[in-house]
Amino acid sequence: MTTSTEIRLASRPTGMPTPENFEVATVELPDPAPGQIQVRNQWMSVDPYMRGRMNDTRSYAAPFELGKAMQGGAVGTVTASNAEGYAEGDLVRSFFGWREAFNAPAAAVEKLDTRGLPPQAFLGVAGMPGLTAYTGLLRIAQLKDGDTVFVSGAAGAVGSLVCQIAKAKGHTVIGSAGGAEKIAFLKEIGVDHAIDYKAENNLSRALHRTAPDGIDVYFDNVGGDHLEAALNNAKLFSRFAICGLISAYNDTGPPAGPRNFVQVLARSVRMEGFIVSNHADLEPAFLADLSGWVKEDKVKWRETVVEGIVKAPEAFLGLFSGQNLGKMLVKLG
Amino acid sequence: MTTSTEIRLASRPTGMPTPENFEVATVELPDPAPGQIQVRNQWMSVDPYMRGRMNDTRSYAAPFELGKAMQGGAVGTVTASNAEGYAEGDLVRSFFGWREAFNAPAAAVEKLDTRGLPPQAFLGVAGMPGLTAYTGLLRIAQLKDGDTVFVSGAAGAVGSLVCQIAKAKGHTVIGSAGGAEKIAFLKEIGVDHAIDYKAENNLSRALHRTAPDGIDVYFDNVGGDHLEAALNNAKLFSRFAICGLISAYNDTGPPAGPRNFVQVLARSVRMEGFIVSNHADLEPAFLADLSGWVKEDKVKWRETVVEGIVKAPEAFLGLFSGQNLGKMLVKLG
Repeated sequence: MTTSTEIRLASRPTGMPTPENFEVATVELPDPAPGQIQVRNQWMSVDPYMRGRMNDTRSYAAPFELGKAMQGGAVGTVTASNAEGYAEGDLVRSFFGWREAFNAPAAAVEKLDTRGLPPQAFLGVAGMPGLTAYTGLLRIAQLKDGDTVFVSGAAGAVGSLVCQIAKAKGHTVIGSAGGAEKIAFLKEIGVDHAIDYKAENNLSRALHRTAPDGIDVYFDNVGGDHLEAALNNAKLFSRFAICGLISAYNDTGPPAGPRNFVQVLARSVRMEGFIVSNHADLEPAFLADLSGWVKEDKVKWRETVVEGIVKAPEAFLGLFSGQNLGKMLVKLG
Repeated sequence: MTTSTEIRLASRPTGMPTPENFEVATVELPDPAPGQIQVRNQWMSVDPYMRGRMNDTRSYAAPFELGKAMQGGAVGTVTASNAEGYAEGDLVRSFFGWREAFNAPAAAVEKLDTRGLPPQAFLGVAGMPGLTAYTGLLRIAQLKDGDTVFVSGAAGAVGSLVCQIAKAKGHTVIGSAGGAEKIAFLKEIGVDHAIDYKAENNLSRALHRTAPDGIDVYFDNVGGDHLEAALNNAKLFSRFAICGLISAYNDTGPPAGPRNFVQVLARSVRMEGFIVSNHADLEPAFLADLSGWVKEDKVKWRETVVEGIVKAPEAFLGLFSGQNLGKMLVKLG
């Protein structure tokens, strides 16, 4: 018998979530039943898309249930096994979310081959955010020779890999992020122009200054002003991968859509939204490419780490004020 | 020596154009110089996209010049030729615009093979609007088996052909237009569901009623509420061809973009703007297909005809209040 502390959805937020929307609970775990394993998580992920699942509305993922643990990615080790092929100490990735430990059928978790990377990388650069960057840039935006690439949320888990994949392929990259520390990181990973959006009062003009001939590809993690700036600077036939709209996730009324939407027509822009779970077929190619880039020192990543399961809500809320440089992670046990 | 009356841009409009933005002038035409022909137009076209060219802002086509004749498509006959290969009576299509007659180098006009269609069809169903419908539906939205198609501005020159191409290919088609006469026309051309948007107070609900499982393709001629309704009813991976945004062309401030833009992400929607002039390579295939559909009685078209060059501004302004059923044309001479 062991115990696990977990974070549950206590109530659905209106606008920006508050600590009151979460509750801490401790449960007892029996020994794993036949076919099950018991896992103690070492790391869990908080990601912007989870905000949508806190609402009780139809979206690409089902809403979180009230009174149940928040779901999401985690990496941990098997502490007890009652299933063939799994042994104590095995490293596994799972999607049971914000909890220290759990029992589950062995088939519901994924044994992790770390390929020399730290385990928590499989929640970030080598995990869902990494595959998101790869999918959006290469499959959705269809990056091609000569493209100038603009990335918003460029210092985040997804954005920083988008920048580096584009640089590894020889492109001119413009990244936008907020604050001096993030701008320094963008320069360290080799972006050609780093825009500190918090220091600019006109993002369209800032983008025009750095890309006077316009942009061919926009990787959108943010929406709002960033999307409008990208439209105002779009070249004819440019392609926008719409990956995230974090600026709008906590809006209570309908947000204003891009006020210069007419540019989609005037500049023959292609915009495409995508959800990484529909592109899992790319994972083997992604991991192979990523290993190569890491070996060649073409990809770096950062983590912002909060310790302890009870700090998970704080880590999550920090995403919406840009508290994270790189991947926001919660370190457990 | 002959004379030609023409309509010039007198001043640039703010918002909806008024008759004062246009001026009538009569010019004398000398005999055509060597290499030139003289053409008397029988028909001229007014199209929504011309509104953008009345502004002094960068767009996909250069602004009309103040004090000069408005440009656009016309069909006429050669009345004098000083160029090899052209003879009096030849039918030609040209883009010199809102004028009764003109002299031009022979290479600047296009001799018309009417293939049994009336000459003015080459300003509508067999002309730029027709190719626009074909390009947007087949190349941009990439219509595929089983798609449910929603078309706004469905009784217009472009929209009515979109509906009929989709029907000819066996699709379920929902068309939106304003008023009983247009709705009757939509039924006549075989659309499965005709929505009279003027009679609906919630377009999203009206669309949901007619397409309870959602839409796969949206052909947008309108923008605004129609685009929002399409997003609210989009199936996963649906494709939107953004062809026109007539609801916004006379906005003076920045229009609100689609307030539910987040659906682009949530439903993995692909939206693509396009300009027909970038897809001229499709014209031979389009004309071959169109001939077939006309022979099989699968394509009908309507014209709204205004007579006399001085009525051209009135015809043009009528486009923005939906005065046209099918192609709006000005009959000359």
